[in-house]
Amino acid sequence: MSEKLKGNMLIAQGGGPTAVINSSLAGAIKAAKGYSNIDRIYGSLNGVNGIINENIVDLSGETDGNLDSISRAPAAALFSTRDKPGEKYCGKIFKVLKAYNIRFFFYIGGNDSSDTLQIVKEFAEREDYEIITVHIPKTVDNDLLLNDHTPGYPSAARFVAEAFVGLDLDNRSLPGVYIAVVMGRHAGFLTAASALARRYPDDGPHLIYLPERPFSETDFVKDVKDSYNRYSRCVVAVSEGIADENGTPITAKLSDEVEKDAHGNIQLSGTGSLADALSGHIKDNTDIERVRSDTFGYLQRSFRMCASSVDRREAFDVGQKALFYAADKNKSGSVTIKRVGDYGVEYKLVELKKVAGKTRVMPEEFINEAGNDVTEKFIKYLRPMLGADFVSGAARIRAQKVEKKL
Amino acid sequence: MSEKLKGNMLIAQGGGPTAVINSSLAGAIKAAKGYSNIDRIYGSLNGVNGIINENIVDLSGETDGNLDSISRAPAAALFSTRDKPGEKYCGKIFKVLKAYNIRFFFYIGGNDSSDTLQIVKEFAEREDYEIITVHIPKTVDNDLLLNDHTPGYPSAARFVAEAFVGLDLDNRSLPGVYIAVVMGRHAGFLTAASALARRYPDDGPHLIYLPERPFSETDFVKDVKDSYNRYSRCVVAVSEGIADENGTPITAKLSDEVEKDAHGNIQLSGTGSLADALSGHIKDNTDIERVRSDTFGYLQRSFRMCASSVDRREAFDVGQKALFYAADKNKSGSVTIKRVGDYGVEYKLVELKKVAGKTRVMPEEFINEAGNDVTEKFIKYLRPMLGADFVSGAARIRAQKVEKKL
Repeated sequence: MSEKLKGNMLIAQGGGPTAVINSSLAGAIKAAKGYSNIDRIYGSLNGVNGIINENIVDLSGETDGNLDSISRAPAAALFSTRDKPGEKYCGKIFKVLKAYNIRFFFYIGGNDSSDTLQIVKEFAEREDYEIITVHIPKTVDNDLLLNDHTPGYPSAARFVAEAFVGLDLDNRSLPGVYIAVVMGRHAGFLTAASALARRYPDDGPHLIYLPERPFSETDFVKDVKDSYNRYSRCVVAVSEGIADENGTPITAKLSDEVEKDAHGNIQLSGTGSLADALSGHIKDNTDIERVRSDTFGYLQRSFRMCASSVDRREAFDVGQKALFYAADKNKSGSVTIKRVGDYGVEYKLVELKKVAGKTRVMPEEFINEAGNDVTEKFIKYLRPMLGADFVSGAARIRAQKVEKKL
Repeated sequence: MSEKLKGNMLIAQGGGPTAVINSSLAGAIKAAKGYSNIDRIYGSLNGVNGIINENIVDLSGETDGNLDSISRAPAAALFSTRDKPGEKYCGKIFKVLKAYNIRFFFYIGGNDSSDTLQIVKEFAEREDYEIITVHIPKTVDNDLLLNDHTPGYPSAARFVAEAFVGLDLDNRSLPGVYIAVVMGRHAGFLTAASALARRYPDDGPHLIYLPERPFSETDFVKDVKDSYNRYSRCVVAVSEGIADENGTPITAKLSDEVEKDAHGNIQLSGTGSLADALSGHIKDNTDIERVRSDTFGYLQRSFRMCASSVDRREAFDVGQKALFYAADKNKSGSVTIKRVGDYGVEYKLVELKKVAGKTRVMPEEFINEAGNDVTEKFIKYLRPMLGADFVSGAARIRAQKVEKKL
């Protein structure tokens, strides 16, 4: 190998936090300490926003003990940002990186983050400044291309599965219709995880609606009625991003007020309006008395007890691998997870532009024909990621009914 | 002792399920097997509703292994009911109990359940039918009189505390105002549990509103602004039952549509309307851009991962104790929990009518003067119940900011 690049490194966290994003941070910092060609280990506060405003901390002295503690804490220890840098913003980032002699830049984030790295890299090339940029994947949505799955998803999926175990038993105790709205604007992976809650054939969720298939209010009412007739109850999992066949979000159709974010996206999380609208729709169109709904909201991405052991380990690994590719191999790119056998993983570095700014959705083979449930293939796909201590459903009383006396 | 009463027993579960109500069921059934004066161990499906409709199962053959599994499952394994029996309904219950030669009747539930037992007992006395009725306490609201706390509460409290650990870190990562609505119509114990999430002085929740104190929309806006000025963010815990100084529920004041249940109570759970109304109120009355809200809904009473080890053991104990008082001591009443030292418990049987139909709320000493937080006394009260493995808050990066270069 030729001479290795030498200099400082900078790491940042972007986008919606996850339960294990700090494991990737810990993995990267711990690994960085072992490379002699890395001098200072800088961290930017609030993602790219901290770079342009020079809110930078020196992580070189973080103890392994504290890094272990931080790796078990949900959300972003370096804080996050929703900033989505364009050309000009990336130019500012580049200027700061150069001033701090940053030669290794790591961004833990989703597909927007890999996009940012790609633009910064192009800036550096134009100015003939040597820099390695590596994207460390995370997203509860599981929507990164070229990845079997993404760190953060298994833990959020475990929250959803655990939640539906309890909620289904609750609904069995006090029957009615229960609807829970799960995160997922374009990809239904997280909502689909609700299927892992089932143990017995009549366990819920009985219906699962994903953004990958157009949502019809008419079919919804029919499906709920069918389930109610069969089980005397109905538990429904719905992605926040469900839309009709024209692509109009159901939340915009059924509820009065919607808020839009900086990217023009309708606000889906942090409001109970879709859940309330859907339960209202069932109340208006059936005779079913007890109709309840919840929105999982921010709980699903921040609940530390549901961090999957598999997810935590993989999140740490991709952080460590990023440093290996950058500092040892002098290579830029995005660290991806490949599945091997049932169940192992391998990590591969792929070109940034192959992941940047693109969205993966649920493959056809994971969704049933009627578009209101998942397939066995999806269950087989997800189960090993939840950790060996995850158990579907719960035990039941086995006692038989006694003959009536009166 | 004189001769012990002999015959069959019946056990049922009523009201909103909890994460550990099945531990009480398992404790009672396992204990029942050891008393020779108990013949058949009957269970009623769906609480008192299963009695009047004779939906009765014979639990005598349940294995200890299955009972152990069931004790770890949230919600009511025998199913529950919202029926609140009056005189006539209790008459029907009594008729069935007599037909099945039930001499020991156990009802696991809140204060409505102890009320039912009291009326059934009076029926039996009038008809000179010997029966022992024992109330086994449960309620996530922690609102039973004469109890230091109630089984089910510590686990729901742990969910709330765990949730706020993650949500506060999430809000620290992406700052703004975050409001979470927690269960509790009259008693604020569950919402108050959010305070246990804090480790560092600036950790949230920064504001806690309880139904014990009148809620003022004006003070709310002022409190949020103050917190936002101090921390550049604000995390708020609110009881679903908050009401203004005239007793009008805030959910009825701020949102358009409300639903009432059979008892004339406004529907508080299973809808996100209060959370949305409160965040709307902050958006309308401040310049803060990012305002989000969630409603914990049914998650908080059904999440098995948050079952506290202390709660599970005590729930089992009160079930076992109920059998001891009934079958060994021939005594009716309600099993209560007394705290001893820091931290132990003792169980005492008290008269049914002392618990029946009454509601305990947070004592004054648990609420701060401003009515927007809890006191250290409350934190000391709750902490041991959450289990030794509960840890407040999370570790933070200790790194200092580096001097700006540009």
